Amino acid sequence: MRVEGTWQRTIRMADDGWAVELIDQTKLPFEFVIRRLETLDEAAEAISFMRVRGAPLIGVTAAFGLCLQMRHDASDAALDDACRKLSDTRPTGVNLMWALQSMRAALLEFAPAERVVAAYELAAELADADVETCQAIGEHGVALLERVVEENGRRVPVQILTHCNAGWLATVDWGTALSPIYMAHDRGIPIHVWVDETRPRNQGANLTAWELGQHGVPHTVIADNTGGHLMQRGQVDLCLVGTDRTTATGDVCNKIGTYLKALAAHDNGVPFYVAVPSSSIDWSIQDGIAEIPIEERDPREMSHVIGFAPGYGRTEVAVVPEKSAVANIAFDITPARLVTALVTERGICAASAAGLRELFPERA
Amino acid sequence: MRVEGTWQRTIRMADDGWAVELIDQTKLPFEFVIRRLETLDEAAEAISFMRVRGAPLIGVTAAFGLCLQMRHDASDAALDDACRKLSDTRPTGVNLMWALQSMRAALLEFAPAERVVAAYELAAELADADVETCQAIGEHGVALLERVVEENGRRVPVQILTHCNAGWLATVDWGTALSPIYMAHDRGIPIHVWVDETRPRNQGANLTAWELGQHGVPHTVIADNTGGHLMQRGQVDLCLVGTDRTTATGDVCNKIGTYLKALAAHDNGVPFYVAVPSSSIDWSIQDGIAEIPIEERDPREMSHVIGFAPGYGRTEVAVVPEKSAVANIAFDITPARLVTALVTERGICAASAAGLRELFPERA
Repeated sequence: MRVEGTWQRTIRMADDGWAVELIDQTKLPFEFVIRRLETLDEAAEAISFMRVRGAPLIGVTAAFGLCLQMRHDASDAALDDACRKLSDTRPTGVNLMWALQSMRAALLEFAPAERVVAAYELAAELADADVETCQAIGEHGVALLERVVEENGRRVPVQILTHCNAGWLATVDWGTALSPIYMAHDRGIPIHVWVDETRPRNQGANLTAWELGQHGVPHTVIADNTGGHLMQRGQVDLCLVGTDRTTATGDVCNKIGTYLKALAAHDNGVPFYVAVPSSSIDWSIQDGIAEIPIEERDPREMSHVIGFAPGYGRTEVAVVPEKSAVANIAFDITPARLVTALVTERGICAASAAGLRELFPERA
Repeated sequence: MRVEGTWQRTIRMADDGWAVELIDQTKLPFEFVIRRLETLDEAAEAISFMRVRGAPLIGVTAAFGLCLQMRHDASDAALDDACRKLSDTRPTGVNLMWALQSMRAALLEFAPAERVVAAYELAAELADADVETCQAIGEHGVALLERVVEENGRRVPVQILTHCNAGWLATVDWGTALSPIYMAHDRGIPIHVWVDETRPRNQGANLTAWELGQHGVPHTVIADNTGGHLMQRGQVDLCLVGTDRTTATGDVCNKIGTYLKALAAHDNGVPFYVAVPSSSIDWSIQDGIAEIPIEERDPREMSHVIGFAPGYGRTEVAVVPEKSAVANIAFDITPARLVTALVTERGICAASAAGLRELFPERA
């Protein structure tokens, strides 16, 4: 999408044809920095330090991380080690495992000498496929927004609430939950997005607000505490969020706090939609609460806030007394019963095993 | 309660016998500053700038604000002007109106020349009555915690989730929601408190964590997004929060985000209790959503975070892109149907008109 008027992707090949460049999202929204990766370790660090985040983008970054390792050592052992190292970076999302397994299976078909070229081709295909998936999600999702416009009689903007960042910064381009929003905006449909700040890492305030602003989409940043009140007062037409892992039964694992917004939507009759690229569906599990490992991250992300101080630039401040314990739980599970529908690249379906089977019969 | 081992109140008379001293809560948790008030304007500023906050403490501070004005001008007109000025500082809480109306009615019984002495006596009585009320809430509420201990078989700490600050810093001493927690702790009942950070103003991270820490109560600060996940996993035995205004039917207006936690408690069968001094009950209204004005505060409280930076001290950082709109809605309504019970100074009752009538028959 657009940054200062120029179309950008979150990740791309460097001009030299082998290194990888990505937007360092830890610097946003106050600095726009492109970071160059040359090694597997740098790719793993970029994922674990959340320079890139968002389930789809993590998967693509891991694929490029394998390319960098193949350049260095293309043996079976090196491939396996690299997959292990990359899969250890973030435990919750499933695209990461999916991308690594796809890459590994494909690369094992090649002789080591041919793996470098093959890896770059496969990673580039994965990146392009992600863009296509996100565009398809956008096409299907925009119909939901058009329906609201019809119901509202085109008089007022469609009010959408989103949590965390499931925008183009979470993917290669377009985004998942934000893809229908960009398409609606580009088609002239009046929309306004309530952006949850999304503590502890503030991906809403730092990333979603920034990318919506760069693309010109009207939005308002709110505290994570606010969505229930807005829904109670009829100020939200629908919720639209992303997912890091969705079970075969439609339970949705997403950034911590998603469950609370789904409860509020349910309590107020507001539709709650989840944008789900099929790469984020874990077909092997049925029960999100029992089966998905929930990442706990460094307490410092919770006890401290990074922001911008005039004269000092990027500054970290403590917001919790030094002696207080702190917990930083990164994800929660929204049970399928609270999800109105899933928006996938193949269309919209019920958040249920039956719903998903209908769109993905090959997985049944 | 204890600060560095010394028992403190949030507000008190200065040694000179006429000025008022209070803990400046905007400086916590990183500095402990006592602020001296000498004029009505200083009292109004302390409330509107949230140097003091919490419905009960706002009421007592307003009462002392009237004392300062009576010293300067004790006429009927000055009394009315002062009441108006103080009542305009915060629109949502009801203790403020209640304290001002009580003081005004009482002072009008005196000739202007006698009003200064009477005002100080009345304000001191109000402060002492607040302490007694909070102690009574603590005595009634501690029984709820003892019941959990019995059910858990004394093996594990009682896990309590609280939102915002309804501790002694929100009152003159003891607190409302935290009063039972302090009493349980002082009686040796093992407890652990999950403290919601409570954006935008971070009263949980800044005030609740600080006062629990000073008194030695085990606690963990979490993002506001986290409570639903904890309740889903059985890690919360009960929720206990305060209120800024409660309707005659038991709808609870409290810091924004309270409603979301009540929804999660309801969805997971976790009891949700609200500590309610009767001074915060608005007997004149029936429907919280329709009838309680919700304060919107300066967007800067949302777009910026104040914390502590080593070497720089108290520092404000921006956390939202400069061009993004921001909304700062301070309260929400938790419908009575989501509240397990109200803990008042007269005992525990159902969150309903009938429940409240039973404890407060004189209001029926």
